Amino acid sequence: MLPRTYDNQVCSVARALEAIGDRWTMLVVRDAFLGVRRFEDFQRDLDIARNVLADRLGRLVDDGILERRPYQEKPERFEYRLTEKGLSLWPVLVSLMKWGDRYAAPNGPPTLILHRDCGGEVDERFRCKVCGADVEARTAEARPGPAAPRRWPTAVP
Amino acid sequence: MLPRTYDNQVCSVARALEAIGDRWTMLVVRDAFLGVRRFEDFQRDLDIARNVLADRLGRLVDDGILERRPYQEKPERFEYRLTEKGLSLWPVLVSLMKWGDRYAAPNGPPTLILHRDCGGEVDERFRCKVCGADVEARTAEARPGPAAPRRWPTAVP
Repeated sequence: MLPRTYDNQVCSVARALEAIGDRWTMLVVRDAFLGVRRFEDFQRDLDIARNVLADRLGRLVDDGILERRPYQEKPERFEYRLTEKGLSLWPVLVSLMKWGDRYAAPNGPPTLILHRDCGGEVDERFRCKVCGADVEARTAEARPGPAAPRRWPTAVP
Repeated sequence: MLPRTYDNQVCSVARALEAIGDRWTMLVVRDAFLGVRRFEDFQRDLDIARNVLADRLGRLVDDGILERRPYQEKPERFEYRLTEKGLSLWPVLVSLMKWGDRYAAPNGPPTLILHRDCGGEVDERFRCKVCGADVEARTAEARPGPAAPRRWPTAVP
């Protein structure tokens, strides 16, 4: 793995990449946005080694992007929820997704981001294509697109 | 390094991360947006091992994000320029930067993204805060912010 810090880089892009500039980390964050909360669900969805997943979840908690909340007492069990800082990553994820849709989705978008209020699709400026509203993480929802896999979405109720 | 592909992930975020989900790669792309074009300039700015830089530049060319153009004949020398596909990464970079500004820039933003026409700052929806115009890569310019290091910008004329 790369070193986590780039001390010679006074740059907010470099700082952001220290926290989330790892592909597994971004896929964990993506899953959290899709409603995945539990270790076993992340593990199954990502097909990731358990020690790698534990490491990435631990870093995301340390960095204040996810928080660990108990959901069961005996035995004690925890789930992972996006914090405000984590929710603020929504534009990064949507921008990555829109770029992937444009250049690497020959069968159409696997996932659509919709404006929760009116069902309109969200454009690359996070604006609703139907009503023109500015959309953010809390007013958006992800739904299967034309090229969605059969198992989409993994853990969304 | 992680494997480059996530075949079980039908997802545009995963596809995008295959191309750019490596921190050095994103820093190379950031430098390209700041006007860096030549191997030696990338190398000096990033303080990156030459073989790693050559690998990342080669992948970015293979993926159609950068193109390699001759700028001198004897001896033959090349520079690297963002393609249309590369320029389309602008929202990803700006979103990463805005997130880093918010959560990891206690002394203020090292870099500002301005609307070239009116000098207004660009917000997290890529809109000019002064005139309200939708801004994109070609109508934006990067300038040192309040927390800019003395050597900023590296290679911008």
